[in-house]
Amino acid sequence: MAADLAARGFEVKLYNRTAERIREIALRGEIELERENGTFCVGRLATVTSDIAEALDGVEVAMVVVPASGHRDIARMCAPHLREDQIVVLNPGRTGGALEFRQILEREGCTTDPIVAEAGTFIFASRSTGSAQARIFRRKNAVALAALPATRTGHVLEALCDAYPQFIPAPDVLHTSLDNMGAIFHPTLTLLNAGWIERTKGDFQFYIDGITRSTAHVLEVLDRERVTIAAALGVPARPALAWLKDAYSAQGDTLYEAIQANAGYQGIKAPRNLRHRYIFEDVPFSLVPLASLGAQFGVSTWGMEAMIRLACIVHGTNYRQRGRTVEDMGLKGLRVSEIRRYVQEGRINPFYVPAPAPRRPSPRPAQQRSAQAHRESAVALE
Amino acid sequence: MAADLAARGFEVKLYNRTAERIREIALRGEIELERENGTFCVGRLATVTSDIAEALDGVEVAMVVVPASGHRDIARMCAPHLREDQIVVLNPGRTGGALEFRQILEREGCTTDPIVAEAGTFIFASRSTGSAQARIFRRKNAVALAALPATRTGHVLEALCDAYPQFIPAPDVLHTSLDNMGAIFHPTLTLLNAGWIERTKGDFQFYIDGITRSTAHVLEVLDRERVTIAAALGVPARPALAWLKDAYSAQGDTLYEAIQANAGYQGIKAPRNLRHRYIFEDVPFSLVPLASLGAQFGVSTWGMEAMIRLACIVHGTNYRQRGRTVEDMGLKGLRVSEIRRYVQEGRINPFYVPAPAPRRPSPRPAQQRSAQAHRESAVALE
Repeated sequence: MAADLAARGFEVKLYNRTAERIREIALRGEIELERENGTFCVGRLATVTSDIAEALDGVEVAMVVVPASGHRDIARMCAPHLREDQIVVLNPGRTGGALEFRQILEREGCTTDPIVAEAGTFIFASRSTGSAQARIFRRKNAVALAALPATRTGHVLEALCDAYPQFIPAPDVLHTSLDNMGAIFHPTLTLLNAGWIERTKGDFQFYIDGITRSTAHVLEVLDRERVTIAAALGVPARPALAWLKDAYSAQGDTLYEAIQANAGYQGIKAPRNLRHRYIFEDVPFSLVPLASLGAQFGVSTWGMEAMIRLACIVHGTNYRQRGRTVEDMGLKGLRVSEIRRYVQEGRINPFYVPAPAPRRPSPRPAQQRSAQAHRESAVALE
Repeated sequence: MAADLAARGFEVKLYNRTAERIREIALRGEIELERENGTFCVGRLATVTSDIAEALDGVEVAMVVVPASGHRDIARMCAPHLREDQIVVLNPGRTGGALEFRQILEREGCTTDPIVAEAGTFIFASRSTGSAQARIFRRKNAVALAALPATRTGHVLEALCDAYPQFIPAPDVLHTSLDNMGAIFHPTLTLLNAGWIERTKGDFQFYIDGITRSTAHVLEVLDRERVTIAAALGVPARPALAWLKDAYSAQGDTLYEAIQANAGYQGIKAPRNLRHRYIFEDVPFSLVPLASLGAQFGVSTWGMEAMIRLACIVHGTNYRQRGRTVEDMGLKGLRVSEIRRYVQEGRINPFYVPAPAPRRPSPRPAQQRSAQAHRESAVALE
């Protein structure tokens, strides 16, 4: 994303917690990028740093592009440096990313009022292909995004629209968080194909081969749990089958049929081993927050619980404890009406009088915005 | 087993609940058997029937050779027909087979005092190869057996020793039930290789390929739970690693190493699909009773629970409800000392005065036993 933005003329600062990880890029000052159409370009970066204060200084938007397991760290480090109305976008938030990020900012005493938003998924299918090289396989057409509170979503979309017009508004962060398809597909397929992955180093088609009638049945059970949790929160989450039809035009009456008919899954190999973010990210930051919400609202999450337990055993890690719970998201003990008010308006109690709202800059007209594109910046973290 | 016994000169009655399943054998009156050394023989049966009264009439030993899911049915059907001191052997009992069998006999009002025993495993590795054909791949050297109560184990071994001298005494049915290795290996390997099994119709080596470092780690976790449950009951169960060393001389410091080094696992293919007894038998009649004992005695069975849940989801069946619990085994609410007294002596309360014990026939001397071998009979159920 840093290379893509820089190559397209945006001013970009690249930050990584670990200087070593961006050393080569810092030396060259640029990243080589192979685009989805096979052409190559170079993104020249304004700054490459592992100093968060330097990275955030003066930027309009901070794009956080790390596994969700890094969100807490990033939030803690950003907290002292974020200024009024500065925008932080989690790409993506998985489940409850923006909610937890805001909780941490508050706990860390961040008194300015930055805007925290989350995307439903990462806008690219892409890989780092070298120490200063990247490749974009596919650029998604539409990615849902919501700010916390939702009243600020429009402001974020406007700030991003020159760079990524693909972002479309979600009603609130509950929608982006509950329409988390990775939660359904990633851990289950990885665990129910654990032996195959480890024995062959992932040498089979992850979706086309790994999703069989029985594994698809487990996916359906988990998906039903997710949709039911969403319904308990008043959110009409999209079932995975409907999502496959929308996103890939994949037809079929069952998840199994739709996946077998999905050309978009052709050629995607399985992970090379089980130490993969499909488990260490998607279990604690997708399944655990979903199951935690299910528990709070009396929705059975039998299938999710089985996967969480199994992942804990396979990795010898207590993902339930390390994962994101209703407590981390600041939702513990809240009623549905309170949660919905919180994600919409940013406050729980309707009688609570907030400090005077910071004055928003009036939206720039479109023609001005385009001219100012070079002032936008991204903090991209791999 | 029926063919083997008959071919070796024992008088055998073959019974199956479903007449259709033994129709071909009934027509021919015999079963063709390929033995482990590659030679062929024929076992001529005295009776082939689906009438349980006829099957049990006059036989000394009833060998029950069915998946554990059939034990309840068999127990109910046998109850009215079992006579004093008639021997029923479950081949094998899985976990708690003899305990539940006896509970059902009592509930069904069986007033005679038949002897119920269970083997730790089936004495053959064998397959039915046709409607009246069978093949024995391997004959095990030593199979633990215990009667309920243990005071009668010697009597059962004596009755069986002409036919199968491989049977060796276990201290009691807790030992045969808790040394259940299938509980550890079968469901976990099937579920963690679910996609692979279903996609390739089981075309890989189940143990050699399917047991990887991660799946072996899950096996170790479940095995530790089993050994801990046994310890809570005062039973020194053998860890799977030690069992692999004893049974197969497989060396290694971890389960993974021992399995990879186990020549005995070479060539064993995975199940062809997931509708297999590795789940529908081993989950409800191995894992469920183990987890149920764990719950009663405060032993965490996190790993077993994950496997049980997953199996329930994959098969859309409530195996926990259908499975064998402490209640079914007649152990619910009993203390360890009470359970141990029960399996040893057949009664829970030391102050309880049982009805006068039926007079046991004095053991026949060995030379007589041999001559009487033809009077032994087996009810073998495939």
